[in-house]
Amino acid sequence: MEIVSDYKWEKGQTIQRMVEQFGSLGFQSIQLNRASEVAIKMKREGAKIFLTFTSNMVTSGLRGFFAQLISLGMADVIVTTVGGIEEDIMKATGERFIIGNFKVDDLALHEQGVNRVGNLFIPNESYEKFEDKLNAFLELLYAKKPRWAVSELLKEIGLLLDDKDSILYQAARHNVPIFCPAITDGAFGFHLYLFQQRHKDFIVDVVEDFKNIVLCISYDDKKGAICLGGSISKHHALLACLLNGGINYAVYLTTARDTSGSMSGATTDEAKSWGKIKDDSDAATVIGDVTITFPLMMAAALEQLETEGLLQHG
Amino acid sequence: MEIVSDYKWEKGQTIQRMVEQFGSLGFQSIQLNRASEVAIKMKREGAKIFLTFTSNMVTSGLRGFFAQLISLGMADVIVTTVGGIEEDIMKATGERFIIGNFKVDDLALHEQGVNRVGNLFIPNESYEKFEDKLNAFLELLYAKKPRWAVSELLKEIGLLLDDKDSILYQAARHNVPIFCPAITDGAFGFHLYLFQQRHKDFIVDVVEDFKNIVLCISYDDKKGAICLGGSISKHHALLACLLNGGINYAVYLTTARDTSGSMSGATTDEAKSWGKIKDDSDAATVIGDVTITFPLMMAAALEQLETEGLLQHG
Amino acid sequence: MEIVSDYKWEKGQTIQRMVEQFGSLGFQSIQLNRASEVAIKMKREGAKIFLTFTSNMVTSGLRGFFAQLISLGMADVIVTTVGGIEEDIMKATGERFIIGNFKVDDLALHEQGVNRVGNLFIPNESYEKFEDKLNAFLELLYAKKPRWAVSELLKEIGLLLDDKDSILYQAARHNVPIFCPAITDGAFGFHLYLFQQRHKDFIVDVVEDFKNIVLCISYDDKKGAICLGGSISKHHALLACLLNGGINYAVYLTTARDTSGSMSGATTDEAKSWGKIKDDSDAATVIGDVTITFPLMMAAALEQLETEGLLQHG
Amino acid sequence: MEIVSDYKWEKGQTIQRMVEQFGSLGFQSIQLNRASEVAIKMKREGAKIFLTFTSNMVTSGLRGFFAQLISLGMADVIVTTVGGIEEDIMKATGERFIIGNFKVDDLALHEQGVNRVGNLFIPNESYEKFEDKLNAFLELLYAKKPRWAVSELLKEIGLLLDDKDSILYQAARHNVPIFCPAITDGAFGFHLYLFQQRHKDFIVDVVEDFKNIVLCISYDDKKGAICLGGSISKHHALLACLLNGGINYAVYLTTARDTSGSMSGATTDEAKSWGKIKDDSDAATVIGDVTITFPLMMAAALEQLETEGLLQHG
Repeated sequence: MEIVSDYKWEKGQTIQRMVEQFGSLGFQSIQLNRASEVAIKMKREGAKIFLTFTSNMVTSGLRGFFAQLISLGMADVIVTTVGGIEEDIMKATGERFIIGNFKVDDLALHEQGVNRVGNLFIPNESYEKFEDKLNAFLELLYAKKPRWAVSELLKEIGLLLDDKDSILYQAARHNVPIFCPAITDGAFGFHLYLFQQRHKDFIVDVVEDFKNIVLCISYDDKKGAICLGGSISKHHALLACLLNGGINYAVYLTTARDTSGSMSGATTDEAKSWGKIKDDSDAATVIGDVTITFPLMMAAALEQLETEGLLQHG
Repeated sequence: MEIVSDYKWEKGQTIQRMVEQFGSLGFQSIQLNRASEVAIKMKREGAKIFLTFTSNMVTSGLRGFFAQLISLGMADVIVTTVGGIEEDIMKATGERFIIGNFKVDDLALHEQGVNRVGNLFIPNESYEKFEDKLNAFLELLYAKKPRWAVSELLKEIGLLLDDKDSILYQAARHNVPIFCPAITDGAFGFHLYLFQQRHKDFIVDVVEDFKNIVLCISYDDKKGAICLGGSISKHHALLACLLNGGINYAVYLTTARDTSGSMSGATTDEAKSWGKIKDDSDAATVIGDVTITFPLMMAAALEQLETEGLLQHG
Repeated sequence: MEIVSDYKWEKGQTIQRMVEQFGSLGFQSIQLNRASEVAIKMKREGAKIFLTFTSNMVTSGLRGFFAQLISLGMADVIVTTVGGIEEDIMKATGERFIIGNFKVDDLALHEQGVNRVGNLFIPNESYEKFEDKLNAFLELLYAKKPRWAVSELLKEIGLLLDDKDSILYQAARHNVPIFCPAITDGAFGFHLYLFQQRHKDFIVDVVEDFKNIVLCISYDDKKGAICLGGSISKHHALLACLLNGGINYAVYLTTARDTSGSMSGATTDEAKSWGKIKDDSDAATVIGDVTITFPLMMAAALEQLETEGLLQHG
Repeated sequence: MEIVSDYKWEKGQTIQRMVEQFGSLGFQSIQLNRASEVAIKMKREGAKIFLTFTSNMVTSGLRGFFAQLISLGMADVIVTTVGGIEEDIMKATGERFIIGNFKVDDLALHEQGVNRVGNLFIPNESYEKFEDKLNAFLELLYAKKPRWAVSELLKEIGLLLDDKDSILYQAARHNVPIFCPAITDGAFGFHLYLFQQRHKDFIVDVVEDFKNIVLCISYDDKKGAICLGGSISKHHALLACLLNGGINYAVYLTTARDTSGSMSGATTDEAKSWGKIKDDSDAATVIGDVTITFPLMMAAALEQLETEGLLQHG
């Protein structure tokens, strides 16, 4: 029987120490501590780890952290939405996003050519420069062959980038596939369409990529998932695991709730009914904004794994 | 200057009357009243209407309402997730979903072969029967041609169904395209993959379908969107409108919040900064579960539009 | 085994019919239907009904509905916060609140002497006029006796009002006590303090009022609670019932969640662990804004109860 | 113009460093960084600091942190709900709360005599022992005088406790008043009532305590508020400041939203319209569970203030 303990501030307190204290604090802090322990366990047990996130997190400064996690061997498979791909490429090619406010005059912003994502701003010109870059990439790819699975295509682009903080860059160099089941749902899609108009035999093969995600793990692998937010990123990773016998370890960090039956809000409990999470799995759901909960939960796990020599360097 | 009015129950009160009273009640009820008025206006003004929803809503009894709205001419374009497609086909071929509870023993459910979506249950055998049906459909389609855009493929399936309460059935018969930008993110994707293993030249062309959604409306059309929940359904519809000069009328009904910068939680205000909603558009965001807010908001709008002779019958 | 049914719009649809259809729709609509049935049942079974709400609901147009419910015999005990008392008196003495917006320039509002409650505005002058009225009331009361329990004091004020849409007016005339455990937490408290400065023997006896709420029901009564939102209103009603053997029927309508352990977000499930809700009770929790869910849920219940001749008139 | 920066894990990372990085991360992490800076600023500027919280936070391990903050001079006035008072006394007299789960069989818990608060459990016997203690305290107080303002009464009890982790203990010894505007809304109220039955002249004077909170600060003081969660705790503190010319610095940490017009969800923006926060004030609202956000935000602030020699020791 575990007992609630009084939290106390200690001078020079580390993240690891705070997350340890969270284990007996209460409510979501307990969940966060458990999530950290599940993340440690999935690595310790040699599970193949799916890391999933949505595009707004790439808009934020979590983007470089995702890249770092790939380089440290904490992500074996990435699933994200196309906005995340686009913004990673923008940042890798020099674009910068601005810290703004939630409460602004949105019409005025629009007139200034600025797009808002919560309290972050993206200038239109970042999109314009992205388009030029993307077209150049597509020409290079098409010169090799006309039919591409999405994850193959993203790997090729990753190899063309030169930014160690880039998700695509690190993924390409560490053989971590990036799956994006709705590749056309963004500016990327528009440029694929324009490109296909000029090259009718150019094909983006999403069905082939379903094979790739199903076969990138095996029935015998232990499998873990760290799902940030909801959307198809989360669903796609869990589906791939389900088709391989289900998942062993799961961590969901989200703001969505389970009361409306959405995939985004579904907890690790609900996942058990789908066989998405195996009966004996270790799982934790943390309700909260991932820009706070994820660095905290993950940094504590990394400290421990580093101590155990389980992180990869270089 | 509008004044808050005291709501009073009246015997035999209709939906239309209640939603009218909501206009001066307060908080989200005011938003719901505005949403209803925006829905009326977009139809009255002859806008092309995008209706977007997520799969959990098709799990629920909103599914037949979506089909009805298509038949009444209230939806010119549908965007949804693949789970919604799958479950519409299941229901159209006789499967029934069960009313359960949010708080259950999920491992026990799993052992009984039952999958949970919030407080609704789907038996495994509904998925098994779906697979047989889907394979038969794919054979018929492939016999016609090997390369299909997603919306073409869904139309063909819709024509093969025989259920007036089916979204695909009504959409196929009313020339309402159904877009599904992540067609592989579900059991559907798994069967496409198995099918492609047997027929290597079978291609699902998502890039072609991006052309279809962009060209299904024109720059000159007035455009409206009714977005239920978030996800790629909402994003994809708004993107297609943006590439055609932006949207004139927008209604968002969602439980997601704007405080984490997610697409699902983005309000109609934020959309202005992206040019997704035109500066002078009419727009309303209602926070709440769509199984309550949507029937209420839309039934009130339908009453008014019926009175004005603006609904299509047959 | 209940089955999900497709919702369909019907011309001239009534509230009662829609809420009936909600019973097989899904997610929160099912909860709302259950809440309506629990409300019917508590009246049918002759339970003493506690109705609790927070001040923002009195700011909204629900205020007149609360008064109506008292007059119809649907509320035997009221528990609310002092802001609700103040605003009911303001409205009863002619003040009007304005429909505004959630997103405004709050500093500009302040300079205009306008206070914001969500998307509703209250002018400063409404508060100023309230103060004059309240002082006059206190003088009249003090002339009778110096020591008052809160509910006695509110009844006296109710008798001095002349507005059938007033909660205090109807409560006073139907012998429905209004409890307000934090009577000083508002402008009311400030004026009590100024009054006590002039009359040192003037006492507001909150401990006496605890006796009143505990004794206003008995151990043998069947007890029901309809709790809108959270806060001390909800807690106080449940506590009074708990001290009388627990509650038989409970309906919670709220936007708060159970994930942070707050009283406001506690569900009817959690209440069982406290003995607040009896083991065999009928209970339902609906997540959503009460300005939408409450009129809907309650109007459907009223229709049924009227048919059964269970509402009181006059 | 501030730019989004990529977050990176660093070995041995401290809380202070992480919260610094949050300043350019995005969404709620930016808000948390701002909240930390506002907390530093209010102390640096010599503001009188109101710290408000709800009872569930005292159920959790934040209780000892609140006591520590009082001893460090980071709280000049406390406002809380009576459940928080009760549980602080329980813990101070040896009771221990248990770490449980959100998803349990609540009827079974009830039969075991265990009460649930989110994922924490409180045994019935803790309440029983509390009652004995409280009666003894009341006898001691009554022997001194029959009429008590709430904050006086709580100070006396605090002086009788012997636990450095107790809020009441530290507050009594540092002359920090504890206000509790609804002192009867809990087991405390029940025992006050039983006591008053035996001693008719025993009076708990809430009106006197309103004077105390209004006069514990002056118009000329700089004033700050750190409000955790909502409820009357938050409202009462802001009201007291408003009556003294408004507040200069405000930090709100909450899970409640502003879309339903509740006090709990009202942001620091809305407070400006009420003059609750002065026009030129520094303010930040962070959405999230306080068991995560508060230790993080506050520990970072304490590190900085310790460096500047602004914390009190002993």
